[in-house]
Amino acid sequence: MNQQTENKNIMDYDTVRLDEEESAVVILDQTKLPGTIEEISLRTAEELYEAIYLLKVRGAPAIGVAAALGIYVLAKQTKAPDSDTFYRELVKNKEYLESARPTAVNLSWALNRMQSVALSHRGETPAAVTAHLREEAIAIWQEDIRVCKKIGEYGLTLLKPGDGILTHCNAGQLATSRYGTATAPIYLGQERGYGFRVFADETRPLLQGARLTAYELKASGVDVTLICDNMSASVMKNGWVDAVFVGCDRVAANGDTANKIGTSVVAAVAKYYGIPVYVCAPTSTIDPDTPDGDAIRIEQRPAEEVTEMWYRRRMAPDDVKVYNPAFDVTDHGLIAGIVTEYGIAREPYEISLAKLKGMAE
Amino acid sequence: MNQQTENKNIMDYDTVRLDEEESAVVILDQTKLPGTIEEISLRTAEELYEAIYLLKVRGAPAIGVAAALGIYVLAKQTKAPDSDTFYRELVKNKEYLESARPTAVNLSWALNRMQSVALSHRGETPAAVTAHLREEAIAIWQEDIRVCKKIGEYGLTLLKPGDGILTHCNAGQLATSRYGTATAPIYLGQERGYGFRVFADETRPLLQGARLTAYELKASGVDVTLICDNMSASVMKNGWVDAVFVGCDRVAANGDTANKIGTSVVAAVAKYYGIPVYVCAPTSTIDPDTPDGDAIRIEQRPAEEVTEMWYRRRMAPDDVKVYNPAFDVTDHGLIAGIVTEYGIAREPYEISLAKLKGMAE
Repeated sequence: MNQQTENKNIMDYDTVRLDEEESAVVILDQTKLPGTIEEISLRTAEELYEAIYLLKVRGAPAIGVAAALGIYVLAKQTKAPDSDTFYRELVKNKEYLESARPTAVNLSWALNRMQSVALSHRGETPAAVTAHLREEAIAIWQEDIRVCKKIGEYGLTLLKPGDGILTHCNAGQLATSRYGTATAPIYLGQERGYGFRVFADETRPLLQGARLTAYELKASGVDVTLICDNMSASVMKNGWVDAVFVGCDRVAANGDTANKIGTSVVAAVAKYYGIPVYVCAPTSTIDPDTPDGDAIRIEQRPAEEVTEMWYRRRMAPDDVKVYNPAFDVTDHGLIAGIVTEYGIAREPYEISLAKLKGMAE
Repeated sequence: MNQQTENKNIMDYDTVRLDEEESAVVILDQTKLPGTIEEISLRTAEELYEAIYLLKVRGAPAIGVAAALGIYVLAKQTKAPDSDTFYRELVKNKEYLESARPTAVNLSWALNRMQSVALSHRGETPAAVTAHLREEAIAIWQEDIRVCKKIGEYGLTLLKPGDGILTHCNAGQLATSRYGTATAPIYLGQERGYGFRVFADETRPLLQGARLTAYELKASGVDVTLICDNMSASVMKNGWVDAVFVGCDRVAANGDTANKIGTSVVAAVAKYYGIPVYVCAPTSTIDPDTPDGDAIRIEQRPAEEVTEMWYRRRMAPDDVKVYNPAFDVTDHGLIAGIVTEYGIAREPYEISLAKLKGMAE
């Protein structure tokens, strides 16, 4: 299905769902967006693993839901003759899926919930346990929708009509079952006529901001402007940003937060401009077993993601607004020295630069 | 000429030069790098304008040199019957070339020098004035090389062997006649066995860091690692960066500095991590007529530069090292609030997050 020709709206699709027979997890393939809307069905553990590893389904909440539904779908297919074999199979599948991505805690959180259910019903028949697994997976899925909506309500209290919001990566509908986390206040505000102006970092290397956030916000009628990641200081300096809203993959006990590469860049820049940074985090992403950020394992990805183009396709929706200055201005207070052929100028620059300029004449 | 097949080294080429007959400005087409090394000859004002506007030649010093040589080449072709017509022609060419890019001051600085020469010899024959223009253009070109080397010497005093250096965009040999500005200390250090480790921001949207800086440093044997712009905080937090070296397009009287989009992002992040930022600036880039950064006109470029791929080509040299973490950690001190479905956690997070976590259980 091609979005342009059939005029489908991304908001009409579930990011993650079960097919009608509940024999497959159906996901919107996010590596094909925004050019093509394509749903794919995942039936095997390998297909589920690959979809998570290759970011066909991504976003901490969404991969948690996909993995939970996946465990149920795999359980349904079992040929295990007894409950012990069944349980060992489930643990194997669980550990395999868990290894697909190490940083987002929701993946292991959701999988642990599924394993706990299996464990507490271990004496029962595979079919009976599978029914419990179904219940738990659906609960995780439905909770995600409720949780996002609540986050939206609380987030909205931090904003006022007309605010400019900068967001990084995609913590939107495509990262969750619905509403998103960082985008939840934006969608709620949109319904209530808040008229937000949103700046979406393109988010290199995989361009989730350009391909997904700009896409879904635009499809929902939100005033969104795509920027390169390195333009955040420029839009903040222009006074266009009142708050930064981002999602997260894991929040440590002390509040240190892992999120898409570049989030801490945005945060440091926002600090310099006195702009508050809000992290939208379902409690499932809070990990009390991780004392601080240093204890969070950071996933390293292939070099080709940086050096090669994104599938050699157009990487942003048609007609999206773009703010594209070729330069920006670094305040002198941020510059430790200006090196010239006559020496190094330092603060106060009015004096030191005039002196060096004089030497050049 | 293809770099891979003929094994040519970028360092063997001049960024800007005259052809043997001095009838054309010859430039290395930087939009084709790193895949293809191709020199193109610019003979008309339109060809010169287009090469500057489309960044076939780019970098503040290099476009100054290209424009100065261009004025000489155009003067040589003149059919002006008298000195007044000749001068009017020259001013027209000068203003046309000047309009190609507004932010870098070197372009107008070099063109003003050429016009001044023509003005001070206005009574002479076109051929005589052209000889003076040749002298001035060659002087600007040769000065650029000397200036860069001096910047390298001064810059090197700020560094020690083994230092990690982060640079943004390309202020390298490809941005100047030779040595570069921000790269000059790196090249000098390389000659002297300093063993620097350099991190090159890819520099979206046009990827000068990935295509040019990573390319020329690698070709010179420098230990260079390509990162996306949004990975600067990550490499700084890892303790891999001792100093930031960047070039500039215009330095205002108070030291405010315009440089490639993203430079102020790097500076704000470096400030947070206590890392010094050095701006390498030939005095020709210092503009005493610009009081501060607010007075610098910032060039806006087409949206397609962000939304479309860079010529749908591979955008980094073969085998370049890449550091590609999928996430980073934002220190809690940078987060104003963490929004959950049970409310918003604020500092101290140990208490507020534990409380919210308790509500979720």
